[in-house]
Amino acid sequence: MFDLLKTDTSSLARLGRLTTAHGVVQTPVFMPVGTQASVKALDPRELDEMGTEILLGNTYHLHIRPGLDIISEAGGLHQFMNWHKPILTDSGGFQVFSLAKIRKIKPHGVEFRSHLDGSLLFLGPKESMEIQRVLGSDIAMVFDDCPPHTATPREVRGAVERTLRWAAECREQPRAKGQLVFGIVQGGSHAELREECARALTAMKFDGYAVGGVSVGEPEPEMMKAVEYAVPFLPENQPRYAMGLGTPAQLVELVARGVDMFDCVLPTRVARNGTAYTRKGTISLKGGAYKRDWGPIEEGCDCFACQRFTRAYLRHLLNVNEILGLRMVSVHNSHLFLRVMADMRQHLAAGTFGEFRREFIAGYRPSRKVLAARQCTQPPVDEAG
Amino acid sequence: MFDLLKTDTSSLARLGRLTTAHGVVQTPVFMPVGTQASVKALDPRELDEMGTEILLGNTYHLHIRPGLDIISEAGGLHQFMNWHKPILTDSGGFQVFSLAKIRKIKPHGVEFRSHLDGSLLFLGPKESMEIQRVLGSDIAMVFDDCPPHTATPREVRGAVERTLRWAAECREQPRAKGQLVFGIVQGGSHAELREECARALTAMKFDGYAVGGVSVGEPEPEMMKAVEYAVPFLPENQPRYAMGLGTPAQLVELVARGVDMFDCVLPTRVARNGTAYTRKGTISLKGGAYKRDWGPIEEGCDCFACQRFTRAYLRHLLNVNEILGLRMVSVHNSHLFLRVMADMRQHLAAGTFGEFRREFIAGYRPSRKVLAARQCTQPPVDEAG
Repeated sequence: MFDLLKTDTSSLARLGRLTTAHGVVQTPVFMPVGTQASVKALDPRELDEMGTEILLGNTYHLHIRPGLDIISEAGGLHQFMNWHKPILTDSGGFQVFSLAKIRKIKPHGVEFRSHLDGSLLFLGPKESMEIQRVLGSDIAMVFDDCPPHTATPREVRGAVERTLRWAAECREQPRAKGQLVFGIVQGGSHAELREECARALTAMKFDGYAVGGVSVGEPEPEMMKAVEYAVPFLPENQPRYAMGLGTPAQLVELVARGVDMFDCVLPTRVARNGTAYTRKGTISLKGGAYKRDWGPIEEGCDCFACQRFTRAYLRHLLNVNEILGLRMVSVHNSHLFLRVMADMRQHLAAGTFGEFRREFIAGYRPSRKVLAARQCTQPPVDEAG
Repeated sequence: MFDLLKTDTSSLARLGRLTTAHGVVQTPVFMPVGTQASVKALDPRELDEMGTEILLGNTYHLHIRPGLDIISEAGGLHQFMNWHKPILTDSGGFQVFSLAKIRKIKPHGVEFRSHLDGSLLFLGPKESMEIQRVLGSDIAMVFDDCPPHTATPREVRGAVERTLRWAAECREQPRAKGQLVFGIVQGGSHAELREECARALTAMKFDGYAVGGVSVGEPEPEMMKAVEYAVPFLPENQPRYAMGLGTPAQLVELVARGVDMFDCVLPTRVARNGTAYTRKGTISLKGGAYKRDWGPIEEGCDCFACQRFTRAYLRHLLNVNEILGLRMVSVHNSHLFLRVMADMRQHLAAGTFGEFRREFIAGYRPSRKVLAARQCTQPPVDEAG
């Protein structure tokens, strides 16, 4: 199921190959996020052209709209959205704990009110796995308790215990044909809880392991530590997934810490605000600086947008709210994230990952927001986060 | 410049070929509208794939944003938006009279306040032609006075006189290399004014003639009459353009009345509201009726959207505000308008236009809005207009 092809000599980075029911995924891999059965603003051809190998879908959102009956009648999520490569589905745990209103944690799941219409819903290990079975994703995630960054140690311990209990329940549920199931390590920024959770999950023998409870508002060093605490206790020969991360520089640093899989809404979310990612950091394309800039978003980029349009044109489109503007920045950003992953795979294969990492990090100026989270005094280059 | 290839025996419909600086256009032709240097939600590849031969750009909007200096520095509108087939630019007359605030008509143009920031601007024959020269469109339109449907006969006469005076001024302005200039017939629903305006314009010898002052809120029969009043006084061997029209059935009926060129925002505007055009009329894809509809928007359609997605999927996307939803309906609608024009050209070439027209009109159920404008008692099939 997972072939570990090569391990870097200068870090924990790995080159791998993950085989799923809908095809093979080269790792390290970035998964564009199709929360509601669509990667925001992009079509499947564009996703194909930029080299997308696997998408993420979301149990919570798809359960609310269009509802499971519709997707079931379509023949599953792949058919419904006309995407025939692999799909990983998140379990809904993160959303129940971040989006839903008035939730009540019960022994076998969470009772909550829909963030949309306030209707009373229940999601637990059994329900989440049943939804993911019907969605027919290639990889299902266990239903976990994902506490906020501000949780007390006692609350984090409670979340770990619940996550482990629910993981065991998920383990026993029926699956779609060939569906893999990944466990999720919780434990906040507590080394002993991360270790305890990772060890207990590993004993349950999942097909892969995720580090959850990151991207919940924590500063960057804590996020890195959460991963560092968990990775040593996860099996070498199985894929590791850091959930909801990160910026291009963070992806490189997380690969260096032994992570194989990523998903993040950043490329498409910031695009809708006119922010483009480059290998040097972000730029706010709406700014006056690009009014007469006749170059592409990023020199040397071979994405659909950079091959066709200038910064000056895209700036105009963004400023007059033409959809083509945010579309093209979404294309470029997603393409860049995928391309950085492809570069890492190439350098891992060639044995030059250490050099790539050094150069990439040296050339990348993190946004003000990331810098603030590092409590760093380095001057920011832009406004975007 | 314009070759009249064939004239229908059952109507005034004509098959033609218009040669411009950026290529040849087969007529009758539909021009997708790229008001602000982008056809809303579509990219140039999609426009190419659906068979777009010529786009429309807008002097008023492009003058305000991004401003002429930017487009000039880009090397013209074709370069700026990366579209290398023909472009027709509207003169801004329609927008000055419909969008701008606090306008003051002066002998050589209109002083008005920008609909965006209230800044004081002036547009007249000289300014409009200069902007269109810099934009470098293949076809420039004269700057006209376009009164609303509610104008008094006296006001319409004033507008005709002003339009003619300004047309003569436009005629004398410098042009871009190879740029064609079309006159615009005003005259509301007054037969004698339409004739007078058409005759006077024709005497000035433009490269083509448009019927303006339609699509300004008038009922459908008045719109048809405005065209019928003008066409007999326009030269056979030059292209005729009905501005801002219409629905698919109206396009067929206007071709039958001797019109060769059309532009309309309907295909993309209604798409953003979830309304799809078909050869049988419009459907509101957001409706519950399509919840479990696993067919394409339109059976037999070979557009990008119909080849890939079901009505049920698109309905979901539209209802959760995913941009891919309105994108795909924009693709389908624009494709349909272009395809109906291609069908008309084919039937004109084959000598079967009369039959096509009869069948098309019999099969097409106009929207409630169009029916109301006809004061017709036929029951509507949908909500869209």
